[in-house]
Amino acid sequence: MADFSAATEALKNALGSDVVRTDEAARFAASFDNTRLSFMPDAVVFPRDEDDVGAVLRAACASGVPVTVRGAGTGTTGAAAPVCGGWALSLAHWTRLEIDAAAGTADAQPGVVTRRVSDEAAKFGLFYPPDPASVKFCTIGGNIATNAGGLRAAKYGVTRDHVIALEGFLPTGEKVRWGAPVKKFVSGYNLRDLWIGSEGTLGVVTRALLRLAPLPEARRTFLCAFDGDAAALRAAEALLRARVVPSVCEFLDALSVGCAEAYRGKKFFGKKSAVLLVEVDGDAASVAAQAERVRAWARGNASEFRETGDAAEAESLWEARRICSQAMFLLADAKLNEDVCVPARNFIPLLEAMRKITEETGLATPIFGHAADGNLHVHIMYRRADARERAAAQTAIRRVMETVVALDGAITGEHGIGLSKSPFLALQHAPAEIAAMRAVKRALDPQDILGRGKIFTPFNVWDCVPVDVVLPWDKKK
Amino acid sequence: MADFSAATEALKNALGSDVVRTDEAARFAASFDNTRLSFMPDAVVFPRDEDDVGAVLRAACASGVPVTVRGAGTGTTGAAAPVCGGWALSLAHWTRLEIDAAAGTADAQPGVVTRRVSDEAAKFGLFYPPDPASVKFCTIGGNIATNAGGLRAAKYGVTRDHVIALEGFLPTGEKVRWGAPVKKFVSGYNLRDLWIGSEGTLGVVTRALLRLAPLPEARRTFLCAFDGDAAALRAAEALLRARVVPSVCEFLDALSVGCAEAYRGKKFFGKKSAVLLVEVDGDAASVAAQAERVRAWARGNASEFRETGDAAEAESLWEARRICSQAMFLLADAKLNEDVCVPARNFIPLLEAMRKITEETGLATPIFGHAADGNLHVHIMYRRADARERAAAQTAIRRVMETVVALDGAITGEHGIGLSKSPFLALQHAPAEIAAMRAVKRALDPQDILGRGKIFTPFNVWDCVPVDVVLPWDKKK
Repeated sequence: MADFSAATEALKNALGSDVVRTDEAARFAASFDNTRLSFMPDAVVFPRDEDDVGAVLRAACASGVPVTVRGAGTGTTGAAAPVCGGWALSLAHWTRLEIDAAAGTADAQPGVVTRRVSDEAAKFGLFYPPDPASVKFCTIGGNIATNAGGLRAAKYGVTRDHVIALEGFLPTGEKVRWGAPVKKFVSGYNLRDLWIGSEGTLGVVTRALLRLAPLPEARRTFLCAFDGDAAALRAAEALLRARVVPSVCEFLDALSVGCAEAYRGKKFFGKKSAVLLVEVDGDAASVAAQAERVRAWARGNASEFRETGDAAEAESLWEARRICSQAMFLLADAKLNEDVCVPARNFIPLLEAMRKITEETGLATPIFGHAADGNLHVHIMYRRADARERAAAQTAIRRVMETVVALDGAITGEHGIGLSKSPFLALQHAPAEIAAMRAVKRALDPQDILGRGKIFTPFNVWDCVPVDVVLPWDKKK
Repeated sequence: MADFSAATEALKNALGSDVVRTDEAARFAASFDNTRLSFMPDAVVFPRDEDDVGAVLRAACASGVPVTVRGAGTGTTGAAAPVCGGWALSLAHWTRLEIDAAAGTADAQPGVVTRRVSDEAAKFGLFYPPDPASVKFCTIGGNIATNAGGLRAAKYGVTRDHVIALEGFLPTGEKVRWGAPVKKFVSGYNLRDLWIGSEGTLGVVTRALLRLAPLPEARRTFLCAFDGDAAALRAAEALLRARVVPSVCEFLDALSVGCAEAYRGKKFFGKKSAVLLVEVDGDAASVAAQAERVRAWARGNASEFRETGDAAEAESLWEARRICSQAMFLLADAKLNEDVCVPARNFIPLLEAMRKITEETGLATPIFGHAADGNLHVHIMYRRADARERAAAQTAIRRVMETVVALDGAITGEHGIGLSKSPFLALQHAPAEIAAMRAVKRALDPQDILGRGKIFTPFNVWDCVPVDVVLPWDKKK
């Protein structure tokens, strides 16, 4: 790895040792994300203001130092891990947030925790729809970097659908703004949407204008049991065809439900079942009409179902969904969580392919996820200490990616590529597509300053030993 | 202008004279769009298939020939006019369209006329929401090129919100696909959204997967009169604050209404009024609830209003809106139609600025447009033969653009930059932003093949004399 110590010293002299920290503790804390793959940066920069951000990037360009932008570090692909050393640019302390109730917008700095946007917006009868699982911890900056989605995307859209305008810096340290506080904008090229989902490799977001939605007046929740995974997924497809637009339609396969039951020590339904958790929301009249359709669908498709319009009771219907991710560790101590997407018509072929992968590798592959938008989270469970299972997991993950691409899907719906999916990028994209992406990268970041080593350079995560740390979100699961 | 005759001859020999047409009639027809600014191409290419598209682009790159992609030619900025000569690539005959009712998507070739998507989708209870004024004539390819909007964007979004995946060719002639038939996709850079709105300068779209929406069960239409333009715009803002999400909220200033009345020879309301045309749609229950809110708002804000839930009667309420664009020609024989956007909080300042521009230039500036998304169409009326008025119109348009940027708006919400707005690009964007856009252009199109001379090269449309032609959409106004 290159020696960035002289440039780091110069930056520290220029901005001060409060802004540029080189102590071990600060550097270690900025060395990994939720993947726990740790790569020590030479320094962690805590910019005071936009001038500092510009200065850091210009200094980085002058000396060829890689810069890795980070927020809360909840990412699951290693995108925030400084794999090439250099400087971590931490924006988690940039937490200014202003709600404009009249315009229905939020003006947020990148360090604002996602849930806080909805909490503040609720005072004005509004909310911010994107809700990744880490919503209580992750930041708006990170959400923009990965185009974060969540459970309600089929009805409300993903992060991209809620970003009106962005301010920030080009990798070369120049201040830019993409878009304006208006709903239609077609002046020049749309670099706003190019930045969104580019995982911190094309620019540094310092301010985001977000679109809020009216808080739904009412909500109705259904927990439906099905005789087997295929029946549940077929029913999900039927629900979508019935033109119901559920705000939530979560699928849990029978294995996930079984884990949740074992973890909680109780049965959710009389017999072993796959489950769909369905919610409809909107104004009261519309919810009543939609609920009637869901009820008719449940009677025709589910083996059993429960429903409620009460928030506290709904929480009990959510229980299996909330705990299933953690409960899976009853199967093995290590888990790969792959946020793949396939079109609804390919739900069953995906299910069959996963069952085949289980047969061939001997590994459990519980599936849950967002059936309404095809974003099924496929899990591969293995024992970390078992060399055979580790090897089998590596085989399994590649097979999953190949399967998804063959089924006309996406290898990542909301997590991004980062380090961990970089070996599979060429499965998803033709060489000409990747060449075009790299040409864009070179055009905007000729010295490869931002996020060096991410997305385009195949990286083998299996060569790394994750660090053993407890992260804030681990406690809350 | 460079001599492309040898390259043109070679292309004709390679693809045949049916595909590569060099006769005057074909070239003239492909020489202009709705601006009527005519620039003759050396040839018009009617590709038979994707292989032809790739071959044309590779030949263009080999000889440095500019290529201008065109659909129906309804654009209003000259983006489809081959200002640097070379080859026009016509895709209006690529009209294959398939609706996938289960997935709620349309698979469309670029030459499909926009209205046809909704017509076909209606057979399955679906529709395609973007509805530019030219919806009966314009094509999906052109809609993607300008990120076309229309009346219903505030509720349903613009073209970008309905494009799931694109297939096409890089300027260098390589086939690419951006996205997949899934709702979440965050693998690699988002070049799909970079292409959308890039006005044919970054790639050639040959296939688009479009998202359809369920046809609303019910609709209710309100025509509301207000004492003056400011009262109407303030009322529009109040309606949006009341969390009503109208599918349509069209503003017509008193001057536009006056023109429509004179044109039709009847009064729409008892006294001279500005007007808001409001529609709400959705399921029956929801429309009833929303209509009640609109009614309460109209009682509190409008001087007079009429409403209906009947489609034929609604059409009569739409009359003033449908004819006002044509009726404006009672004021003068030439019109600049500027699709500017400002945030709702700046409606009144925009109105005041426009009145000042009228005072200073002596030109009438009727305004109508989409109040719900801030996309107000500002018109500058002048007599073409009058040198003073022509000069005043030039002054006025620059003042409009400066005003809009000062009011935190967009110089173009849905038409694009093309040739006619190119002098104003630097008002909207900082030099670093334009430099970044140009770097992206060079990265993807190193020889500046596609749309040469558009967007980034200031062009003075006032130096050109429009051709005197009657276009299909002229007859239908």
